[in-house]
Amino acid sequence: MNGAESLVRTLLANEINLCFANPGTSEMHFIAALDKVKGMRCVLGLFEGVVTGAADGYYRMTGKPASTLLHLAPGLANGLSNLHNARKARSGIVNIVGQHATYHLQYDAPLSGDIEGVAMPMSHWVRTATSSQTVATDGAAAVQVAHGTPGKIATLVLPADVSWGAAQESTPTVLHALPRELQADGLAAIAQALRGGKGTVLLLGGLALRGRALEWAGRIAAKVGCRLMSEGQNARLERGAGRVSLERLPYDVPGAIAALKGVGRVVLAGARMPVAFFAYPDQPSLLTPEACEVLSLAEPDQDIEQALEALAHELGAASASPAVCELRRPALPSGRVTPEGIAAVLGALMPEQAIVVDESISMGRGFFPPTSGAAPHDWMNSMGASLGYALPVAIGAALAAPERKVLALVGDGSAMYTLQALWTMARESLDVTIVILANRSYNILRSELAKVGAGTPGPTALSMLTLDTPNLDWVALAKGHGVAASRAHSLEELARALGRALTDHGPRLVELVI
Amino acid sequence: MNGAESLVRTLLANEINLCFANPGTSEMHFIAALDKVKGMRCVLGLFEGVVTGAADGYYRMTGKPASTLLHLAPGLANGLSNLHNARKARSGIVNIVGQHATYHLQYDAPLSGDIEGVAMPMSHWVRTATSSQTVATDGAAAVQVAHGTPGKIATLVLPADVSWGAAQESTPTVLHALPRELQADGLAAIAQALRGGKGTVLLLGGLALRGRALEWAGRIAAKVGCRLMSEGQNARLERGAGRVSLERLPYDVPGAIAALKGVGRVVLAGARMPVAFFAYPDQPSLLTPEACEVLSLAEPDQDIEQALEALAHELGAASASPAVCELRRPALPSGRVTPEGIAAVLGALMPEQAIVVDESISMGRGFFPPTSGAAPHDWMNSMGASLGYALPVAIGAALAAPERKVLALVGDGSAMYTLQALWTMARESLDVTIVILANRSYNILRSELAKVGAGTPGPTALSMLTLDTPNLDWVALAKGHGVAASRAHSLEELARALGRALTDHGPRLVELVI
Repeated sequence: MNGAESLVRTLLANEINLCFANPGTSEMHFIAALDKVKGMRCVLGLFEGVVTGAADGYYRMTGKPASTLLHLAPGLANGLSNLHNARKARSGIVNIVGQHATYHLQYDAPLSGDIEGVAMPMSHWVRTATSSQTVATDGAAAVQVAHGTPGKIATLVLPADVSWGAAQESTPTVLHALPRELQADGLAAIAQALRGGKGTVLLLGGLALRGRALEWAGRIAAKVGCRLMSEGQNARLERGAGRVSLERLPYDVPGAIAALKGVGRVVLAGARMPVAFFAYPDQPSLLTPEACEVLSLAEPDQDIEQALEALAHELGAASASPAVCELRRPALPSGRVTPEGIAAVLGALMPEQAIVVDESISMGRGFFPPTSGAAPHDWMNSMGASLGYALPVAIGAALAAPERKVLALVGDGSAMYTLQALWTMARESLDVTIVILANRSYNILRSELAKVGAGTPGPTALSMLTLDTPNLDWVALAKGHGVAASRAHSLEELARALGRALTDHGPRLVELVI
Repeated sequence: MNGAESLVRTLLANEINLCFANPGTSEMHFIAALDKVKGMRCVLGLFEGVVTGAADGYYRMTGKPASTLLHLAPGLANGLSNLHNARKARSGIVNIVGQHATYHLQYDAPLSGDIEGVAMPMSHWVRTATSSQTVATDGAAAVQVAHGTPGKIATLVLPADVSWGAAQESTPTVLHALPRELQADGLAAIAQALRGGKGTVLLLGGLALRGRALEWAGRIAAKVGCRLMSEGQNARLERGAGRVSLERLPYDVPGAIAALKGVGRVVLAGARMPVAFFAYPDQPSLLTPEACEVLSLAEPDQDIEQALEALAHELGAASASPAVCELRRPALPSGRVTPEGIAAVLGALMPEQAIVVDESISMGRGFFPPTSGAAPHDWMNSMGASLGYALPVAIGAALAAPERKVLALVGDGSAMYTLQALWTMARESLDVTIVILANRSYNILRSELAKVGAGTPGPTALSMLTLDTPNLDWVALAKGHGVAASRAHSLEELARALGRALTDHGPRLVELVI
């Protein structure tokens, strides 16, 4: 067996059985190995941002890393911005990046580049395999890093001659590292702080927003009367009818400051200190009141569910009943397209167990309240805020949960960064419905321009913020990628098109003209 | 005036008057400054790879850097692979990359990342501006680096508070550095080597392939009977009827080795040692015969034209007549699409002074001979071989030479990496004709798979190399971006569609189904 085959076998032995790929010459032995070793599903993306984003989406749904296969430094570079997003979402990914044969590097061939240098800023772990005999060990080490608590980005550089050289039969498997131990000694102080009622916020992030962890948090809030809040963006939040009710920290700085006004204590459970997305002149970076005390119950590298359970017991909240969202489907609205109207259509039509991938940016700020009583569903945000995350993440989510409907809500500007994802959806018949929120501008930047004090946009500035002249035709773009699509100009048309798309199986795109 | 305005003024004072942009919040003051200061043309790209590739194309035509405007680490990351290509093409570019306000960095907001780390692998120079008072100096330093011999990638990181803080009125201008001096003492030995006739190759690269430099090289070859050859890929080669006739080093290793068989001496003029694109088991990385002597007349950081002129005088070749290509338009072929047939159509229809941007990969290897007698034109290759270079480079070339027709020849797989370029072409009404060579596969990888000894592709490998299921519909994709398009299935249809596109003004796309 050669090095590539030994690496594929090692990935499989460690339960990495999905590979998102955009390969080139230096990865041909890895590709060939996939036909010799059964069990690795390989999904092609026509651009590397699709590949890395899909791996992020897969991890968010499964808690299990997928692998990617990328071509040399430029191929990795094209995947970086969605690795940035994955990293901020604390998703685990094993990147395999092909490299020239070791002896060929000295000649600085056209595709040569500093792969490790490109990988570093967005990876937690980078290694270049040096021998066919040890590449299996390298692969196992990469899986161990990626599979940590929380997930991490591991990048293994695979020279062509390491791929094609003779390897041993061994396929090392690794134990998953345990989460860092919780500090029991702070628990009493945190419990005491939480008894402060409305003046205290229990701020949830990451795994605190799912399953039993969320229920423990709900019991705590029910018992002590503290406020329960999620961060402004969440990798995956379980919500909808029957799920624990919580507030979400607003995106805009004045809104967030207002929401946290009068709060004396914030207890973090897998969440980070609330900070502004951007700095604005004359506005603070920190969103909590100046005198606010911040305590940490559990960091993302700890067992958050266990921490919340222990805290619930400490507070005598173990058998409290959390406040949950009631089933409340909005009536289908009609008329002109408004953010509230879109949210009502979503709330009315979202199917049970939908996975919402939200990159709605300026339009979607108000989507939460009208959908809180919809059928139970998961809601994902971009954690790194680099545009172009939603369509690729939808691919990974759909592959992870083929029995569930994925609903991607994407601004037209955002969707353009990784529109090639549509082709992979068509090829793999993924059950994804996409709503393109086509306001034909980088609308968020209009408000940001004012907020940073850059004044009223002149003609040049305006031309940098508008996506008209020409308008993008998303029905044509979808068709070009093999995805059926329709266009809606009103809320009735949206309801009709979305209703149909959600009933069909397979990728469907609705362009909502705003 | 604020820092952003002082930077824009400095760029303009240093003759940087074109900015390819994909901005975000942190760049809003720079954008606003463009309305306060007149003279900077700003062109929007909907993906950063379009932005950086366009700057490459502009430099290739003008020898003058353009600026780019990119949003934080992920925005720069999206532009990296075309910066890789630009770097290998020795194009000068001034990247301005927005950064969070300096005091906001400590909070690790969602978009925070290691911008300098991302920039390093593809930049020759990286600096983070630290003060509004000195950002003009930083900008001038960036221009000086980018404007070097050869062109270089300079990346200036611009924190938001440096943009919005108060700055001085001064706009420093810089002198362009002189090329490194030529070594006169080796000239006699090189002249002696060239007298070896057919056993000697004068290998031209970079600026040696244009204007007077190419003519001097032609005179030398005519006088001493040596072979005149270009590298396999060239940033811009002036060719066609009346231009100096030369060979091109073949891409494939056996072809290149055969072409260099029996060569005893290679004299490099702006070219690099001939090396293989990739390493293949049992094939050498170096393409020259083992005993071949390699001499360097001039490196890319020297004045290559002056070196060739001095050499021509040394050889008494100053008044020799170079062998030039005769005007020879092929007859329009008909029938089934073949590489030779496409080349004949191109040779017959290419207009005077066309700029050909070639990313035809597997189909285009044979395009050179039938087009050597076409009307005089420029031919550009990808120098870094990262896919997705052609459409963005065509934008920059069209803006640099609005009176000339740009003809982009692009494989369907390649075009998908940066298809967003079509929208910018439509918006700016650029006179670009695109031929998509739609073989619906990564065809080159089929042959590479065999060449690296990875055997016959099985079903998984094959599925990674094919772009069918579904087929991309390039007519729809073009329409979606606002570009008129048609489809051709035969050489007659290609000739008809291409003839029409080349006669029209503005972007036109022809999908050639192969």
